[in-house]
Amino acid sequence: MRRSPVMRIEDLDTPFLAVDAGVLERNLTDGADRARRRGLAWRPHAKTHKCVAVARRQLAHGATGLTLATVGEAEVFAAAGVDDLFLAYPVWAAGGRADRLRALAGRVRLRIGVDSAAGADRLAAALRGAPAQVLIEIDSGHHRTGVAPGDAGGLAAGAQAAGLEVAGVFTFPGHAYAPGARATAAADEIAALSAAAAGLAAAGIEPLVRSGGSSPTENLSPELPDRWAPTETRPGVSVFGDAQQVELDAAGFDRCALTAVATVVHARPGHAVLDAGSKTLGADRAPWASGHGRLPEHPGARVTALSEHHATVAFGDGDGPVPEPGSRVRVLPNHVCTAVNLADHLVVVDGGETVVDRWPVDARGANT
Amino acid sequence: MRRSPVMRIEDLDTPFLAVDAGVLERNLTDGADRARRRGLAWRPHAKTHKCVAVARRQLAHGATGLTLATVGEAEVFAAAGVDDLFLAYPVWAAGGRADRLRALAGRVRLRIGVDSAAGADRLAAALRGAPAQVLIEIDSGHHRTGVAPGDAGGLAAGAQAAGLEVAGVFTFPGHAYAPGARATAAADEIAALSAAAAGLAAAGIEPLVRSGGSSPTENLSPELPDRWAPTETRPGVSVFGDAQQVELDAAGFDRCALTAVATVVHARPGHAVLDAGSKTLGADRAPWASGHGRLPEHPGARVTALSEHHATVAFGDGDGPVPEPGSRVRVLPNHVCTAVNLADHLVVVDGGETVVDRWPVDARGANT
Repeated sequence: MRRSPVMRIEDLDTPFLAVDAGVLERNLTDGADRARRRGLAWRPHAKTHKCVAVARRQLAHGATGLTLATVGEAEVFAAAGVDDLFLAYPVWAAGGRADRLRALAGRVRLRIGVDSAAGADRLAAALRGAPAQVLIEIDSGHHRTGVAPGDAGGLAAGAQAAGLEVAGVFTFPGHAYAPGARATAAADEIAALSAAAAGLAAAGIEPLVRSGGSSPTENLSPELPDRWAPTETRPGVSVFGDAQQVELDAAGFDRCALTAVATVVHARPGHAVLDAGSKTLGADRAPWASGHGRLPEHPGARVTALSEHHATVAFGDGDGPVPEPGSRVRVLPNHVCTAVNLADHLVVVDGGETVVDRWPVDARGANT
Repeated sequence: MRRSPVMRIEDLDTPFLAVDAGVLERNLTDGADRARRRGLAWRPHAKTHKCVAVARRQLAHGATGLTLATVGEAEVFAAAGVDDLFLAYPVWAAGGRADRLRALAGRVRLRIGVDSAAGADRLAAALRGAPAQVLIEIDSGHHRTGVAPGDAGGLAAGAQAAGLEVAGVFTFPGHAYAPGARATAAADEIAALSAAAAGLAAAGIEPLVRSGGSSPTENLSPELPDRWAPTETRPGVSVFGDAQQVELDAAGFDRCALTAVATVVHARPGHAVLDAGSKTLGADRAPWASGHGRLPEHPGARVTALSEHHATVAFGDGDGPVPEPGSRVRVLPNHVCTAVNLADHLVVVDGGETVVDRWPVDARGANT
């Protein structure tokens, strides 16, 4: 469909986040294929994009549903008609959130994470029999939330006794986010899910769902255990890609669909300062990251300092001349999920400079 | 004014940002007093709060106007009736932004930063004679944007020749944001402004405005130069305070007006995990910061890991028992400006638990 007049990204004031529709389409196709090849249900984490427009494309490509982190995010996607949602979080179901969870359970097919007996009791009291399934969260090595695999059976039995329907186990192998850690984390993830599932089975609970996955590990296929292999994968970031995935060797620049478009406001020998700062890119910087973001057109460049509306870029020897003030450059955020959460909409471009759509970030700020 | 029924913060689902109205009022009074005692115009940076409600209180306490970083922020406050604005940024006045700047100049008393000849030419072309003043940005040691003090006179003369009205100089001593650096940065700031102002005078341009200031340096009063002492201070963060100011010894916990209210969702020996992550607190973490945030009620605790909806807190020996799941705790973000920019509104509380107002974060996301 041709618009008249055609809008080009040069017509938009910087900074803004641009999504290359072609790269996104390729990421969606490949994400669905990867899950299919491994025999896994594909339930992408919508925290990354927070866009109904992207969720619809994921579902059209075969996603079985969405993963969310908060009740607020789930409410946004439920209102848009997505009817199969997993809250991969040990939700504390008190106060207004208890009522909101119960309403959600009456509206969509809902799964909810549990990682403590107190949380399970609270959730059972909140749901009051409303139809929802529970997955027990397992710590596979990230040491954030979740129980040890050996404790899953006991917690599952307790949750069932509290009146909850326990459908299986899940984990997030977040310790894959370190150089060289992907393969080990992928193996840990599968071993933890398998051990926890065996624990549920020993407690007389069929662990139908064994859900794992992260963008750094989804490309890896360690040998699967015979009986309790994963059934589901929940990658988030890989729909867009970001500088962290590039630096972890989990994606190339060519698989990064989203960049911040910025203007050079200051230049000096070897350096430029851009108008996209931490309020556009997000301030995430892992200890192993080489800087605060990457420039796909200048692979040797690094964002060496970031403030709210300034990104200081040091250019490498192979990067050619420093762009002059007024030039536009594209920056890959370190962590795309937090960058998207700063924007009201994403500018969709097709094959370069032409703006083909604007997608609202529907669940931006939906933290509760 | 009593509301019926009285809303309490326990009625609100976490996480959210709460402002203690009493602490804010004290910070406003003290901020105005500090500037007055030093004989400085007080032009607080509204990037910190982005709230018209807070700006009105600053003006009522004697602020001469506001400082902003982006044209988008300035548009929000101009629309709310604030009529004296300084864009402390080397704005690149091209495309739609040129038209927006010209419209703004026709509507409010406007000052704009310039740090390059190209930027000055572009700005002059954008304004087309619309009434605005220009301040030359000086690098006083932060090495972000700005020119060396010795280059200010030449740049000012060029800007004037391009048709701009040059009213003086400004700097941001951002290198104060490091342990033990505050006093040196405050001295650098004053020396740089003085030298740059002398350069303007030598070029035949009266440097009426010498604008500096940052929250870490505003409490300090180095010996002022005789002739070209600062005339204006632009603190941002100190209206609310944050963990960075505490760790730089620029403010105590008792001067921190804004905290994130979070729920414990997971507890284990020595540790709790909260539902306020980087999408609530922001991910800013300076190399010298002791963690990702502080807990005013648990001074020994540190936020040792942060993901989007999880803050992992390690409690110290003197912090008492780890709060149980379901407990609420308050967290000071490391950098309040980026935390506020994540929220749609701030919950205003008075003397503890009673909610007395909700202030929209009017300029949230106004990055262009």
